[in-house]
Amino acid sequence: MSHRFTLFTGQWADLPLEDVCRIAAESGFDGLELACWGDHFEVDKALADPTYLGSRRALLEKYGLKCWAISNHLVGQAVCDAIIDERHQAILPPEIWGDGDPEGVRQRAAARMKDTARAAASFGVDTVVGFTGSSIWHLVAMFPPAPESMIERGYEDFAERWNPILDTFDTEGVRFAHEVHPSEIAYDYWTTDRALQAVDHRPAFGLNFDPSHFIWQDIDPAGFLYDFRDRIYHVDCKDARTRLDGRGSRLGSHLAWGDPRRGWDFVSVGHGHVRWEDIFRMLRFIGYSGPVSVEWEDAGMDRLQGAPEALAHLRTYDFSPPSASFDAAFARAD
Amino acid sequence: MSHRFTLFTGQWADLPLEDVCRIAAESGFDGLELACWGDHFEVDKALADPTYLGSRRALLEKYGLKCWAISNHLVGQAVCDAIIDERHQAILPPEIWGDGDPEGVRQRAAARMKDTARAAASFGVDTVVGFTGSSIWHLVAMFPPAPESMIERGYEDFAERWNPILDTFDTEGVRFAHEVHPSEIAYDYWTTDRALQAVDHRPAFGLNFDPSHFIWQDIDPAGFLYDFRDRIYHVDCKDARTRLDGRGSRLGSHLAWGDPRRGWDFVSVGHGHVRWEDIFRMLRFIGYSGPVSVEWEDAGMDRLQGAPEALAHLRTYDFSPPSASFDAAFARAD
Amino acid sequence: MSHRFTLFTGQWADLPLEDVCRIAAESGFDGLELACWGDHFEVDKALADPTYLGSRRALLEKYGLKCWAISNHLVGQAVCDAIIDERHQAILPPEIWGDGDPEGVRQRAAARMKDTARAAASFGVDTVVGFTGSSIWHLVAMFPPAPESMIERGYEDFAERWNPILDTFDTEGVRFAHEVHPSEIAYDYWTTDRALQAVDHRPAFGLNFDPSHFIWQDIDPAGFLYDFRDRIYHVDCKDARTRLDGRGSRLGSHLAWGDPRRGWDFVSVGHGHVRWEDIFRMLRFIGYSGPVSVEWEDAGMDRLQGAPEALAHLRTYDFSPPSASFDAAFARAD
Amino acid sequence: MSHRFTLFTGQWADLPLEDVCRIAAESGFDGLELACWGDHFEVDKALADPTYLGSRRALLEKYGLKCWAISNHLVGQAVCDAIIDERHQAILPPEIWGDGDPEGVRQRAAARMKDTARAAASFGVDTVVGFTGSSIWHLVAMFPPAPESMIERGYEDFAERWNPILDTFDTEGVRFAHEVHPSEIAYDYWTTDRALQAVDHRPAFGLNFDPSHFIWQDIDPAGFLYDFRDRIYHVDCKDARTRLDGRGSRLGSHLAWGDPRRGWDFVSVGHGHVRWEDIFRMLRFIGYSGPVSVEWEDAGMDRLQGAPEALAHLRTYDFSPPSASFDAAFARAD
Amino acid sequence: MSHRFTLFTGQWADLPLEDVCRIAAESGFDGLELACWGDHFEVDKALADPTYLGSRRALLEKYGLKCWAISNHLVGQAVCDAIIDERHQAILPPEIWGDGDPEGVRQRAAARMKDTARAAASFGVDTVVGFTGSSIWHLVAMFPPAPESMIERGYEDFAERWNPILDTFDTEGVRFAHEVHPSEIAYDYWTTDRALQAVDHRPAFGLNFDPSHFIWQDIDPAGFLYDFRDRIYHVDCKDARTRLDGRGSRLGSHLAWGDPRRGWDFVSVGHGHVRWEDIFRMLRFIGYSGPVSVEWEDAGMDRLQGAPEALAHLRTYDFSPPSASFDAAFARAD
Amino acid sequence: MSHRFTLFTGQWADLPLEDVCRIAAESGFDGLELACWGDHFEVDKALADPTYLGSRRALLEKYGLKCWAISNHLVGQAVCDAIIDERHQAILPPEIWGDGDPEGVRQRAAARMKDTARAAASFGVDTVVGFTGSSIWHLVAMFPPAPESMIERGYEDFAERWNPILDTFDTEGVRFAHEVHPSEIAYDYWTTDRALQAVDHRPAFGLNFDPSHFIWQDIDPAGFLYDFRDRIYHVDCKDARTRLDGRGSRLGSHLAWGDPRRGWDFVSVGHGHVRWEDIFRMLRFIGYSGPVSVEWEDAGMDRLQGAPEALAHLRTYDFSPPSASFDAAFARAD
Repeated sequence: MSHRFTLFTGQWADLPLEDVCRIAAESGFDGLELACWGDHFEVDKALADPTYLGSRRALLEKYGLKCWAISNHLVGQAVCDAIIDERHQAILPPEIWGDGDPEGVRQRAAARMKDTARAAASFGVDTVVGFTGSSIWHLVAMFPPAPESMIERGYEDFAERWNPILDTFDTEGVRFAHEVHPSEIAYDYWTTDRALQAVDHRPAFGLNFDPSHFIWQDIDPAGFLYDFRDRIYHVDCKDARTRLDGRGSRLGSHLAWGDPRRGWDFVSVGHGHVRWEDIFRMLRFIGYSGPVSVEWEDAGMDRLQGAPEALAHLRTYDFSPPSASFDAAFARAD
Repeated sequence: MSHRFTLFTGQWADLPLEDVCRIAAESGFDGLELACWGDHFEVDKALADPTYLGSRRALLEKYGLKCWAISNHLVGQAVCDAIIDERHQAILPPEIWGDGDPEGVRQRAAARMKDTARAAASFGVDTVVGFTGSSIWHLVAMFPPAPESMIERGYEDFAERWNPILDTFDTEGVRFAHEVHPSEIAYDYWTTDRALQAVDHRPAFGLNFDPSHFIWQDIDPAGFLYDFRDRIYHVDCKDARTRLDGRGSRLGSHLAWGDPRRGWDFVSVGHGHVRWEDIFRMLRFIGYSGPVSVEWEDAGMDRLQGAPEALAHLRTYDFSPPSASFDAAFARAD
Repeated sequence: MSHRFTLFTGQWADLPLEDVCRIAAESGFDGLELACWGDHFEVDKALADPTYLGSRRALLEKYGLKCWAISNHLVGQAVCDAIIDERHQAILPPEIWGDGDPEGVRQRAAARMKDTARAAASFGVDTVVGFTGSSIWHLVAMFPPAPESMIERGYEDFAERWNPILDTFDTEGVRFAHEVHPSEIAYDYWTTDRALQAVDHRPAFGLNFDPSHFIWQDIDPAGFLYDFRDRIYHVDCKDARTRLDGRGSRLGSHLAWGDPRRGWDFVSVGHGHVRWEDIFRMLRFIGYSGPVSVEWEDAGMDRLQGAPEALAHLRTYDFSPPSASFDAAFARAD
Repeated sequence: MSHRFTLFTGQWADLPLEDVCRIAAESGFDGLELACWGDHFEVDKALADPTYLGSRRALLEKYGLKCWAISNHLVGQAVCDAIIDERHQAILPPEIWGDGDPEGVRQRAAARMKDTARAAASFGVDTVVGFTGSSIWHLVAMFPPAPESMIERGYEDFAERWNPILDTFDTEGVRFAHEVHPSEIAYDYWTTDRALQAVDHRPAFGLNFDPSHFIWQDIDPAGFLYDFRDRIYHVDCKDARTRLDGRGSRLGSHLAWGDPRRGWDFVSVGHGHVRWEDIFRMLRFIGYSGPVSVEWEDAGMDRLQGAPEALAHLRTYDFSPPSASFDAAFARAD
Repeated sequence: MSHRFTLFTGQWADLPLEDVCRIAAESGFDGLELACWGDHFEVDKALADPTYLGSRRALLEKYGLKCWAISNHLVGQAVCDAIIDERHQAILPPEIWGDGDPEGVRQRAAARMKDTARAAASFGVDTVVGFTGSSIWHLVAMFPPAPESMIERGYEDFAERWNPILDTFDTEGVRFAHEVHPSEIAYDYWTTDRALQAVDHRPAFGLNFDPSHFIWQDIDPAGFLYDFRDRIYHVDCKDARTRLDGRGSRLGSHLAWGDPRRGWDFVSVGHGHVRWEDIFRMLRFIGYSGPVSVEWEDAGMDRLQGAPEALAHLRTYDFSPPSASFDAAFARAD
Repeated sequence: MSHRFTLFTGQWADLPLEDVCRIAAESGFDGLELACWGDHFEVDKALADPTYLGSRRALLEKYGLKCWAISNHLVGQAVCDAIIDERHQAILPPEIWGDGDPEGVRQRAAARMKDTARAAASFGVDTVVGFTGSSIWHLVAMFPPAPESMIERGYEDFAERWNPILDTFDTEGVRFAHEVHPSEIAYDYWTTDRALQAVDHRPAFGLNFDPSHFIWQDIDPAGFLYDFRDRIYHVDCKDARTRLDGRGSRLGSHLAWGDPRRGWDFVSVGHGHVRWEDIFRMLRFIGYSGPVSVEWEDAGMDRLQGAPEALAHLRTYDFSPPSASFDAAFARAD
């Protein structure tokens, strides 16, 4: 019983942070993975207002909660995306969206990611979780034919845009944990491998492991943990469930979350096909010591039920390892 | 033994049509599904030059070949695509690409599709095979969140752009057979269902069935044939093979065709996981009487080997149905 | 938390209803699906004795229980069965069995089903659950060869015998919910489809969904719910478990329930292979608002353990849906 | 290369035997498994007309064919069946059907099976293949509840009706090979086990192994061969193919052969899911030395194609065993 | 609720028996399966010291525990092993190891097993659980070629060494329950079959069923129970979990327990792939009435957590059977 | 069509080499993988008799055959084995066996392996295929507990015994290709990984890839090829077939080859579960250019049938790669 469990606040950003603190504390969480949206962790205020970070910390302490990582998925997404449109407008701060000109948005998003590193450092947090975006995601189906040069340019674009950001991370002593996720530059095993190459495996760039994205792609989550064990900087726990009946597709059919015709869907932890037992045994084996964060996304279950239930479920895998091998007791102690 | 087998010439367009005719004839094909690129079936010439179609027909007849369908996937793709870029430039005729301004490209492509219907009619062919493109394909991963209104707008865009084209098809007495394929407005079972709704199930719009795209999406090809049996206007035969080893992904990892790290790949007919037996039995059951076309796509096998081998393989499924039920012989004939 | 859970009393009919009420109330059920055998819901008394229904209702109220459906599987079975024998004698009221002449039994059973509708209406219940029987079930193996005309005659026989019954249902404002089940006219997906056609999809005839019968037939229960969503009038929850070791058969080998050599068996909810999570998510999606009834059938577990355990298990799937999409919190509220 | 391959003539009985002989000879069969219907092997003539059997033998010899087994499935079926109806009338000789009174039909069928043994013996054939019928098949779904006493009575009925027949078989030195098949007293592994017990494992009663019936019941054919290895008296080769898409059922949905909505269907050898490799290796291992017979049943393929194709397919498994172990050559011969 | 649950003390032998008693009692166990190592059940003292057994019994009674079986796996292993080395030295009592000369060790181990039977009898226990060892285990990969004569000699060696031991068991009225386990003479289904033949199925030799060894060998535990139902003398409950990702092997790769690269591993009950539901239903069916013992072996979980959790998990399968068939209530009681 | 196919002569060593040459030439092989037993390739003569190698080469040339690799599995096995017994005596040359003292045998075997490298070099062959043996194979079941130190010692023993041999290989310019195989130091993925570490990845030590050993261990052969692509020095083609019916075991039950109760068995190429398509596509991708050798091992098929059939089967995978990507023809050539 040794993992530290946090609640990711991204799906609760419609509530004031204090409400989320109260819910998390009552549910038994050890801390929060604070989202940089809503009023949870405002990067601009953190840098501008000398009292802001202290007030956030005080709020957490009032509820006995800690923070080991902050998350800025939404701004990170805009750094590399090829198409910048109303979807981004809906999720970006107005000052990042600005006039919506794509390249301007990308550059303002990059600048904000540097600020996020600065704010994290000031807050005493060494990990920023998030997305990178991708300039080549829309090529995924490979038709019209996408030449290797376009793919290569996508990884280069990623490196060119993120290396300066990661320089700031290095300066601040903070690491970026990219969530491997479709829509991003690294969305599966081999794109992760290539993205790490693109930034020369610099330690500032690591991974946020969320197995829900692996299930429907048919990738083995535990094997991923083993092979990228030196880059697992953060863990988000979300589940996914497939329902492949010959009509539903792996690609989701442009259907809304929760529509059972989809070939797969996000569900609350324990309601899907993630083999958590393998994952927690592997986390222990590779010596992962960071926070384990619950990310509620389930179109069929209220978050007030989902979050504490997920926490309770995950704690059942957080068992203490034995002090000696089970066959040690067979030997006589001469 | 009753299906008519054709060779799709799209992957042979680097060769003069006469060379392709010779190869197809020697391989035993009954006819060709002519591609509207290379010199195989040039839509502009067909409408401008009164001798062109006669010369094409004569060439086919010289080699004892028929034509029951022509294909214009490449131009069709540009009708709806959100992003128009160098990939389209590489595959479109220069006069369609023009200055490359996306909306101009889309409109010129739409006009060319109308011309394709006209040329087909003049050629005595009642089926045009192709792609629709899609303005919403890049939303497939649903992040950043894509509201239902954006999805709906995508289907509306499809209907708005294609209904005028289909009006010309109706005028000409020709049908469009859309190939259900990722990157397109209809890429799986439920998107096909919705695309058909978007054009009010007008008979001018039907489907080109190619099971290779269903394998890696985990959709049942034979069930698809049954449920959309009144809209199966053409059949293309291509195979696909999955190699899901926990690292390869359903999404292909931006890796080139033929790279065995991909979770799936196109392969020549008979080398993949398509259950052709089920498909041919179903085609017979639903009364499909159109051509069955071989489309060679295999990064590991030369097309001169692949095409005749595929034909031979498919003919083994083209068995004659019995004249009476097998248990009819149990009954005494009083 | 919104489904209403009932206990089906059919397997408890050896006990007086009051005993069953007490057990159900103590176990936390919301109501009962009353069986029309034992002393639970006696159709003849309901129609003959003006005080009977009031006394039943009072008994339920004494224990805080409701009733939304009554069940008369046993009499319904005799309406269409080809072979009427000692099995029917064992389960029919003596006045229905009479002299045991098959056609007489069928007609008296049909008359009793009309009375069941009348009694239900008087009791304020709008759903009668049950079986139809079948005159063609014994043809299931198709040897000796069963010509299509015999099959067609079976569906006609069903329509001829049940339409008059359903007329009474319509008159009384009550619906019949047929349990899709081997031995019946509709026992799987396509026989359900055809049985609905046979009665012209009249609204009086709908379905009692019990997934235990689907498991060993390899039918997808959730897909069935979606496709027949407008005819799901009642839900019975029973589980089934396969043990296919190369010797056990899908057909059960004429072995008794509980014999582990059988290829499958009924088991208490949660002990089998029904994917309840998919079913409850689908019930929510299709808007099913009727009762969810626990039917205990497990040759290896006492009903006093099985019924409350099943209820507890099913309640874990009865989660509240969220008030907003999980990605709604990503958007800024301008 | 040592198995003897025969063609079962039951599905060819609409043709005169000489036509079938010609087809079989041209297809390369070694002999025929003669059906006792059509004009192929007429039991009554065989016993009444002293020249009949000689003429049959001469016909076979004219085409270089042998006969090691005759089949009388159709008459055997009527010996035990509970329901005797138009299906039986269609397949029985008129003199066996008579007035159609069920018990009379059963007794005449039993008498004819004794005659079949006598005719076989006269013809120099030691194996009669066939069906037993069953008085309890219609109880297969176990509802209405079928008490163990009814099941037991079914096996007793089988023993009572077949023991006298088998006495004649013993007298004649002929064995009966029952085809394990739904509709019969022994239709799977455990019912075979119990049927053998019911006749005290008397050697006159053995099995005709046809794996097509095992596929959709999920029984392991090769394991069955091993466990009942001393009772495998004949082998019929027919294939079966499942198509379980969530809608099709293991029970066939009362749909006609060849309807792809069925969960399974009979298909020509090599087109289904029987693992013939395992079966032929097992046949060799258990020392089976009888004929291997091709039984064509495929609603999608003409028998003139199916029969020779099946023979060619099966011969690929009839490989010669090695003369020594493959690792024998590792040893030095001192 | 009728099985008696014990804790196997073999993995707790580093603790004094009294500590183990306290833990077991607090955890809710009914008794102990005492290991003959540590100070738990010392065979030499049991025979030499007239007060020893009384003191052990008193200790158990002090904590309300019973003992129905003792275990001497470690000494039994040395009776037949081909290679006797430091592994044995580590687990054998010094007086059995002696000078370590293999044949001497084997004979002293055999003598000690006889003494174990004597001590068990004196202690009022009729079952000794253990291993046999094997002189042919190292031939398992069959290369260099192992002739059948060597295999046969291995079974003979087993019979020669164990028959005299079993004679003593018979004399003492005690049975030996061999744990079917790789490294032993009987490690799977067919080696169990042959080992039983080797000792002529003498009743003194039966089996300790532990399904964890069956999982990774792909053997069906419940079918094993049925087929060897008259030889199931004891049940040990341990779980196993496979993780077959294309790199891990069924053979474990010489990797330590707990290393997730292994293709399989032992885990605490409920954390692996054993289908306990099938096992407990089968145990009930075959009338097993002996103790059900929890054997903790999990390299990832502390035994103080594992043992009580396993007990709680197993008790959920120990449900009471019903007093009557579930369809009994359908019948009217005339 | 570019692979060179050879026949491994190890299973034909009872025949004079000239007979094998004739058979191989008639069967269409390109060359032989000569076994160092029988009279095929005698290492001692090769070094002692100056005419020997010329005569062997002449014999090959007479039949138009080449040799690119020789094999000495049998002697290699004795280099590290813990137990040296009659199995080794049966397969070793008398002068290597000598008095049979294990350590003497090991050292003479090591010396002979050096001579094998010398003879190969003289013969103009740069690859010697074989086995290493293993001093720790018998620990595979991990009971009695095998401490990590024993495992480590096993790999050290391998390095100590083989490094001097590999020094000679280096001197001679020859590589050793170890066949990954149970009984050996490297028998699966992770043991191969560790064995390569044990000899510091020296280039003299590589692998002979034979997928038949991977099938029953559940290891992915194609993934193995990719991960160890720089160490694939030779390829042997043998197939394996599993028959896991709940009774047969992955471990083979000490049953003879060809006994269908075994959970798996070797079979001729194309008769088992190796996915050759994936393997040949991978071999092409990793640029493997060495010989592809057919190794016949099938207890159910004569080698005179098996070898040519295997060759024919494998050639179907040896297709030519295309000269350009299949989507290249979509692009217009401006």
